Amino acid sequence: MDYTAHLDDALTRLHEEGRYRTFIDIERRRGQFPHAVWTRPDGSEQRITVWCGNDYLGMGQHPTVLTAMHEALEATGAGSGGTRNISGTTVYHKRLETELADLHGKEAALLFTSAYIANDATLSTLPKLFPGLIIYSDSLNHASMIEGIRRNGGAKRVFAHNDINDLRAKLEADDPAAPKLIAFESVYSMDGDFGPIAEICDLAEDFGALTYLDEVHAVGMYGQRGAGVAERDGLLDRIDIVNGTLGKAIGVHGGYIAASAKMCDAVRSYAPGFIFTTSLPPVVAAGAAASVAHLKTDAARREAHQTQATILKTRLRGLGLPIIDHGSHIVPLIVGDPVHTKTISDMLLTDHGIYVQPINYPTVPRGTERLRFTPSPVHGPREMDALVAALDGLWSHCALNRADLAG
Amino acid sequence: MDYTAHLDDALTRLHEEGRYRTFIDIERRRGQFPHAVWTRPDGSEQRITVWCGNDYLGMGQHPTVLTAMHEALEATGAGSGGTRNISGTTVYHKRLETELADLHGKEAALLFTSAYIANDATLSTLPKLFPGLIIYSDSLNHASMIEGIRRNGGAKRVFAHNDINDLRAKLEADDPAAPKLIAFESVYSMDGDFGPIAEICDLAEDFGALTYLDEVHAVGMYGQRGAGVAERDGLLDRIDIVNGTLGKAIGVHGGYIAASAKMCDAVRSYAPGFIFTTSLPPVVAAGAAASVAHLKTDAARREAHQTQATILKTRLRGLGLPIIDHGSHIVPLIVGDPVHTKTISDMLLTDHGIYVQPINYPTVPRGTERLRFTPSPVHGPREMDALVAALDGLWSHCALNRADLAG
Repeated sequence: MDYTAHLDDALTRLHEEGRYRTFIDIERRRGQFPHAVWTRPDGSEQRITVWCGNDYLGMGQHPTVLTAMHEALEATGAGSGGTRNISGTTVYHKRLETELADLHGKEAALLFTSAYIANDATLSTLPKLFPGLIIYSDSLNHASMIEGIRRNGGAKRVFAHNDINDLRAKLEADDPAAPKLIAFESVYSMDGDFGPIAEICDLAEDFGALTYLDEVHAVGMYGQRGAGVAERDGLLDRIDIVNGTLGKAIGVHGGYIAASAKMCDAVRSYAPGFIFTTSLPPVVAAGAAASVAHLKTDAARREAHQTQATILKTRLRGLGLPIIDHGSHIVPLIVGDPVHTKTISDMLLTDHGIYVQPINYPTVPRGTERLRFTPSPVHGPREMDALVAALDGLWSHCALNRADLAG
Repeated sequence: MDYTAHLDDALTRLHEEGRYRTFIDIERRRGQFPHAVWTRPDGSEQRITVWCGNDYLGMGQHPTVLTAMHEALEATGAGSGGTRNISGTTVYHKRLETELADLHGKEAALLFTSAYIANDATLSTLPKLFPGLIIYSDSLNHASMIEGIRRNGGAKRVFAHNDINDLRAKLEADDPAAPKLIAFESVYSMDGDFGPIAEICDLAEDFGALTYLDEVHAVGMYGQRGAGVAERDGLLDRIDIVNGTLGKAIGVHGGYIAASAKMCDAVRSYAPGFIFTTSLPPVVAAGAAASVAHLKTDAARREAHQTQATILKTRLRGLGLPIIDHGSHIVPLIVGDPVHTKTISDMLLTDHGIYVQPINYPTVPRGTERLRFTPSPVHGPREMDALVAALDGLWSHCALNRADLAG
């Protein structure tokens, strides 16, 4: 058996399809976000501006967060040293879970080492708790939800993205007595569009289904206290299980669910991905708790975030660049060809010190290859000017399509 | 559908079987390991000594590790802000992967957010790279390996724990032309016994199988530079994929595999659990890299660790307490009854300030319920005396069996 030949085949396929990923090595500079240093493969360095990070609010450099982390390191050291059950539960974990439960208006919250594993572990455990559970899953749900739903071979129905009629038809087609759960997102990260939360909650009520809402691209950024889109829309109490991340707008690391005390207790007790893994380092929990607590009162930061997104979209649209705008903070700019997308990304980085990663198939459909910008409160007018000018020049240079200027 | 009733059922089952877990809330004190403070549910505090942590070498409080973490926080902030592909690869991640590849004598290493997800993601991705792959799995492999092997429904054969003859029989029964992989551990954490690495490597060679070795309970602790048991036994080059953790003896957080450059590249490119998740915070990578680098030269710490384990085992055996001793650093003390185990654990904590979590079914077979001690270089004679005296007293008080004193 020639294992190396198989590996060669697998890697060659990616190169041939233009999907082979090369990681860009960067280091953001604390206090100077979104500025960073790019270390090239040859070891040379270049100053760059990051335009594709998911630290949406710049909380990763917030003094309150960093002070909490320095203090936790001083007080208790580096790692937790154990699983949650065996010496790995600390006051930092408990405090963070309390903050998160309060944020979402739920009885309890449960920390995981990432939002990926929170989705995967929770969604794969729910069929153990509700035998015969049917999971209705939006077709554009994140990979972690898909993996969790697939894991134990339980019943699933994939409904067309944001299509309430298709979801209703699928709910109607199933046994009314079967336990059901609808899994969806509040903000889909590649187009930046919102899920129809209220309509899905209505359907869930009609059909006696649980609701599972992934708010990873919304937590910290939407709602009066930053609980997400469900809070903004006054729907917190209609969501049974919220999934969130501490690694994007919160600026640190880790993931969680928030739900009823019994739901969290049962998932805690039955999910291997929660039970058999070392808990988050106290230093991470401390930073995340400080960030969540801070963001509950920092509505100005959320407003600045939306303002920056609006300005960028307005300016790009003014130049006729084909952005997608669903009113969220994510600004996708369609190039529509994998080679062009990569070329523009490379030129932005090398010639302009602007870092935005190309997004290609299969992350997005073929023909919609794009650059995905994530403006934030730490992107000032100078960075915005530089980006807009660079894109305008490259669009002309590469003779790319512009949208209808009246659009 | 009464979802709450289902949750009640699931939780009641655990209570009835004596398997419901209550997390103990502790905070270790940096510079005073293994001492910690236990916060009781009523908020009152008690000083305790931790005897069941997996920070086996006390690296979680090592100044070199903490300095590296403080510096990374100052330099680059809290989180990474992205997946490895989209703005989440930093010099800290690259440096750590280089340290780990060097540690295991491999071309490359690949970081994951935990060793759990490293096992799960790698083992579930290998069948995509090697179509028709049959995975031979030790019956006592960790939950994360079991989950990864089960995930995609690939072919698997579970062989009796450490049973070379059973493994050979299963290899012989399969198509000689099929791609094969043998997945096992170097130290099994509940009994502290070693896997027969050399014999398994011989079989792998005979049958053209890949070897996958989980060294999470050995990395940092065994071998000249702390690469694990495979290094100690001179077998590094016979292992195709090593899995390790940064959350136990390394004292920080995260997990990894080390393997050939092509293997790491292929797993990196095809594993959803690697691709679609925020990378480890730079501060965690910085601390782990400092710890791994330090441990490469700190053989004295490894010796002190083994010495402490030997002393504890000798002293407990001298009192006739029924320990399991396979020559590793893990010291399981069999109680043999879930209620007694819990009672002794509670009395140790409340009356003696000694924290050791009870280990019950299904983590270990019924009738072998135990306390599992993890002595370390930071446990001094005073802590050892207190533990031994407390156990001696409790064993008499509870009229528990003592082993043959001559044994």
